[in-house]
Amino acid sequence: MTSSGESDASTDTREAIMEATFRALAKHGYSDLRMRDIGEELDVSRTLIHYHYDGKHDLISAFLEYIVDQYEGSVAVPEGADPWSELDRRIDRCLFGPGFDDEFGHWERMKVYHDLFSQAQYDERHREVFAAHYERIRGSIAAVIRRGVDEGVFRDVDADATAQVVTDLIHVARERRISLGQEDAPEQVRRAIDEFVLSSLVDAEFALSSMRRADREAD
Amino acid sequence: MTSSGESDASTDTREAIMEATFRALAKHGYSDLRMRDIGEELDVSRTLIHYHYDGKHDLISAFLEYIVDQYEGSVAVPEGADPWSELDRRIDRCLFGPGFDDEFGHWERMKVYHDLFSQAQYDERHREVFAAHYERIRGSIAAVIRRGVDEGVFRDVDADATAQVVTDLIHVARERRISLGQEDAPEQVRRAIDEFVLSSLVDAEFALSSMRRADREAD
Repeated sequence: MTSSGESDASTDTREAIMEATFRALAKHGYSDLRMRDIGEELDVSRTLIHYHYDGKHDLISAFLEYIVDQYEGSVAVPEGADPWSELDRRIDRCLFGPGFDDEFGHWERMKVYHDLFSQAQYDERHREVFAAHYERIRGSIAAVIRRGVDEGVFRDVDADATAQVVTDLIHVARERRISLGQEDAPEQVRRAIDEFVLSSLVDAEFALSSMRRADREAD
Repeated sequence: MTSSGESDASTDTREAIMEATFRALAKHGYSDLRMRDIGEELDVSRTLIHYHYDGKHDLISAFLEYIVDQYEGSVAVPEGADPWSELDRRIDRCLFGPGFDDEFGHWERMKVYHDLFSQAQYDERHREVFAAHYERIRGSIAAVIRRGVDEGVFRDVDADATAQVVTDLIHVARERRISLGQEDAPEQVRRAIDEFVLSSLVDAEFALSSMRRADREAD
């Protein structure tokens, strides 16, 4: 979005426009959003929007890349975490949010995200951004499952199929909370992921030998 | 929607308005829809829309109830079907469609449905219709699971939690096909439902005794 030669002032302006777009989308929703709603959220001159973006569609596409980048940058996993901890952490972050340190909480961001997601059927460019984002979440979960299998901590499962169903359930938990107002959907889906999906990762022999080792060490 | 004293002509008009709304939504999407787009799809005078509905919101609410009714009436399960057949049939109908016998296919209907679903976050009335519909699908799947448990065909699982995860996966399969254009999502999710969820229903002892009985009968 930002070319390397761009001045700091220009980067600041774009950031300000993106945050104004956030506030306007959170207030009005995508379907009722007009360019002037974004202008009204902006402290600087609204003509700057037209200088930087070629209409509503171009602005919303840029905004989509902006929130997806923010979201992806927010899942930090400590170096050396074991596969179970990393997997839990990634799932929990997606379901319960990373706690953004600003005026918008996780669910304010998710509302805007899911609003735009549903409109992606009408827009090839948005569809590509969402598909790539979905794929990166799935990929990061598949990678930790694959690592767990390699390290002998997880059973030898199909990492891609397992990661897909986890990612799908995360998505639907957010939808149910946002569109249907089911506040407990993320907690409920977290239990379903444990019971129906992660249970397939448990290597009974490995779990047993770990327990035996712990017993011996306790003696 | 239709009071019992209403004339057939009035019912026909409402039906015509509902189908015009369908065509207009499929063409323009909810966010760009104007009342006059619906009028343009209508053979009769567009002033009839205003006679029957109190603005765009009232019309869309009535339309939502109309497609949800259509959809719910379409899942026919033969009398006396065993629990596995009924469960498969219900899941397949939701995932692959009942093959409506008119100009719109299942996916045209689903596109409109999911478009409105995402907008339900902004509308209490729509939210209630969707939540009730979601709950009825979940309930019909829970009922057949409960029956299977009672008949000793399924293991004694938590029918509500199991039905919830099946319904959630159906929802996300449709979303991925519609919003992300992933044509193979329904087939892929069908396999995931079998592997991760329905596998929990298999009563190993019951399966074994059935096999033994079949063996004896074959002798």
